[in-house]
Amino acid sequence: MAPRTNGIGVQVENTRICVVMVGLPARGKSFIAQKAQRYLAWLSIPAATFNVGNYRRTDAPQPPADFFDTNNQEGERKRRAAAEAAVADMLRWFKKGGVVGILDATNSTKERRKWVLDIMTQNNIEVIFVESKCDDENMIMMNIRDVKTTSPDYQGQDPETAALDFRNRIRNYEKVYKSLNEDGDEEDLTFLKIMNVGKQVIINRIRDYLQSRIVYYLMNLHIRPRSVWLSRHGESMLNLEGRIGGDAELSHRGEEYARKLPELVLESVGSDRPLTVWTSTLKRTIATARHLPKHYNQLQWKALDELDAGVCDGMTYQEIADLHPDDFQARDEDKYNYRYRGGESYRDVVIRLEPIIMELERSEDILIISHQAVIRCIYAYFMQKTQEESPWVPVPLHTLIKLTPRAYGTEVQTYKANIQAVSTWRGKGSTAKHEDPSPEKSLFQTH
Amino acid sequence: MAPRTNGIGVQVENTRICVVMVGLPARGKSFIAQKAQRYLAWLSIPAATFNVGNYRRTDAPQPPADFFDTNNQEGERKRRAAAEAAVADMLRWFKKGGVVGILDATNSTKERRKWVLDIMTQNNIEVIFVESKCDDENMIMMNIRDVKTTSPDYQGQDPETAALDFRNRIRNYEKVYKSLNEDGDEEDLTFLKIMNVGKQVIINRIRDYLQSRIVYYLMNLHIRPRSVWLSRHGESMLNLEGRIGGDAELSHRGEEYARKLPELVLESVGSDRPLTVWTSTLKRTIATARHLPKHYNQLQWKALDELDAGVCDGMTYQEIADLHPDDFQARDEDKYNYRYRGGESYRDVVIRLEPIIMELERSEDILIISHQAVIRCIYAYFMQKTQEESPWVPVPLHTLIKLTPRAYGTEVQTYKANIQAVSTWRGKGSTAKHEDPSPEKSLFQTH
Repeated sequence: MAPRTNGIGVQVENTRICVVMVGLPARGKSFIAQKAQRYLAWLSIPAATFNVGNYRRTDAPQPPADFFDTNNQEGERKRRAAAEAAVADMLRWFKKGGVVGILDATNSTKERRKWVLDIMTQNNIEVIFVESKCDDENMIMMNIRDVKTTSPDYQGQDPETAALDFRNRIRNYEKVYKSLNEDGDEEDLTFLKIMNVGKQVIINRIRDYLQSRIVYYLMNLHIRPRSVWLSRHGESMLNLEGRIGGDAELSHRGEEYARKLPELVLESVGSDRPLTVWTSTLKRTIATARHLPKHYNQLQWKALDELDAGVCDGMTYQEIADLHPDDFQARDEDKYNYRYRGGESYRDVVIRLEPIIMELERSEDILIISHQAVIRCIYAYFMQKTQEESPWVPVPLHTLIKLTPRAYGTEVQTYKANIQAVSTWRGKGSTAKHEDPSPEKSLFQTH
Repeated sequence: MAPRTNGIGVQVENTRICVVMVGLPARGKSFIAQKAQRYLAWLSIPAATFNVGNYRRTDAPQPPADFFDTNNQEGERKRRAAAEAAVADMLRWFKKGGVVGILDATNSTKERRKWVLDIMTQNNIEVIFVESKCDDENMIMMNIRDVKTTSPDYQGQDPETAALDFRNRIRNYEKVYKSLNEDGDEEDLTFLKIMNVGKQVIINRIRDYLQSRIVYYLMNLHIRPRSVWLSRHGESMLNLEGRIGGDAELSHRGEEYARKLPELVLESVGSDRPLTVWTSTLKRTIATARHLPKHYNQLQWKALDELDAGVCDGMTYQEIADLHPDDFQARDEDKYNYRYRGGESYRDVVIRLEPIIMELERSEDILIISHQAVIRCIYAYFMQKTQEESPWVPVPLHTLIKLTPRAYGTEVQTYKANIQAVSTWRGKGSTAKHEDPSPEKSLFQTH
């Protein structure tokens, strides 16, 4: 069968890419690597990060700064061995079906980059170098603070000593560091150079679609602090009847939630932060956003409309089980991939949400008022939920969720409106109209 | 009402952008400007190009090379006046609702760029500079050849004399030309610098979503010669009955077309050119591609599926007129914007085709086997059809269409399989099962 695509990851079948990070320590390389991996995995593109530091630590758990001096032969040998082990693991992973492998290390010399390029080229793997270059002292300081508190290299050490040592380590790297194509002799490489977190970006010899997607994603990242708020619409008339899809009005209690929402938002966002509100194009999300402060910009996205249930639109689960028993079962068996006849699968929804994610990455504070399946998919992006988990995540009605991206993960807070609503969560195999999710599946934990 | 978006042109309501082209003559600036305008217009973003040369020609129709020498005061004055007239017109156009205005001129000095930036900033219009820099002699020669044969500046002149004069004109520009941020003092500008048609790209201080869309589109352009072939699936069982949508098998005559297609393709493409085939995920396009040579790569896109007719899926036009008379009429009145209940509008289809267009721009030769509405939308992109025209373009069954992008427009050729098929074209107000388009609407002309 011909490979399928929905617009992302075209011809992934034939493409394997090694993303080689480049840059001095404390330039956000691991942050970029982790974001890229999460984005690709969310799009069903097998991606993995190979952090050379982790390999080095098995041999040298907490080395002093001069371990990273190129004149330190013992240090050089161990660091070289760590890089070789990481690359060997990555090649094994590619053989097992990996598509985008990310080599997270400084790769700060031309020799090291040529070494990686040669190995990958011999294995028919494309190489794209991604350099994070930063001369903004504030940004570097922020990263150093982060490293000294989170890196296993400094665990248990005095923070001030750690910071000093880390600065010395950076100095040792600076001695040999060459920025990509600094001497003009790396112009044949495929690379992306990100200066000061996106202020300027240089893109060189990008060759295919998947490379261009990765580059476009990375050039849209920023690290200014912000949050994303998610809410489902208020309870709808069809929710009351346990029917899916449709374009119903809010129930009484749904209206109550819409009136209460400004208060919840104010409590969570604060009164002086500007907020942009995105809704779907369906009545129930627009009505839910109706009472929010007038100075918030509002925008309707068709991409935020609920998963299209096709021929099952407007039915109860019982009716689906009665009228389309095979479909009902097929969906339970592989809910992520099951596409309603004439409608959509969770996989389809993820693909149409891709521009939303891209725009979220570019934006500051955003409140999204949308639907159960759509919010599950957005939640899965931020929380790295697998395809098996994401279609079953409970997203209760009348609840505001706040997601705050941090250096290595996303923080969750929830705000309950304390307005009763039916549950629209459904367990595997169940045809119940309203069923409560088992408590261990609840969202109400900080991840 | 909150502004709506489908993922492109977010917050267009609040954004106005002046794209200022920068570069020596014969660097493809007008090509880039024209592509960007066509792309944006296709996405319903009001865009227009203001070519300073056209303004200058009213005053100085066929000036010699030394008109462009900065020491020529008369020339300087007239060129300045032309720029002022173009900018004044652009500002008037912005006041009437323009969103992206493109200033097509060399803008090759820092002073000129600062002048444009100041005027636009005073009018709350964002400025993005787009420079095409090229030192590939072959590419420049190609452009010079192009200019001397197509530019009104040299109409009726001996081609060799024209080429010589044009080279001297370029030399006069080179004397004062400064590449963007060449001296490091334009680093606060928002700009995109394209070197040698995309080999390297520098992106500086891109600020919002629309800017980033324009940049992403422009960085994906190439100028290698290629064609795009379009075909509808062979006649389907539902076509025979005059029913829309569905997922039917091919009719006997449709099968015949599928068997004939390889021959048509071979005739048009040639036997030694590699071709990639894209189909939708529906049976009738996959079956139509079945007999194509095995060495062609094939890819299925959900984005190429037929316009979703929602509640009207599988109906005849007569049934739609009987069961949903209001919808039937509303669709005829504004076919581009009418969205079937639970389904899609042409506008929706254009938005989901955007990644297809992006990938087409990146690609070499592609054959697309898809559906009537989808092919109308792709055709509209290449042929600059308006929203009023595109939903009515006749795209007959059993016909292969070849589109070849040229410097200023797209060439069309059609190949008929000479296998009978019903017509699925429908005139405004008609509920006929099968109706032939009026001859003047036919595709069979080279545009």
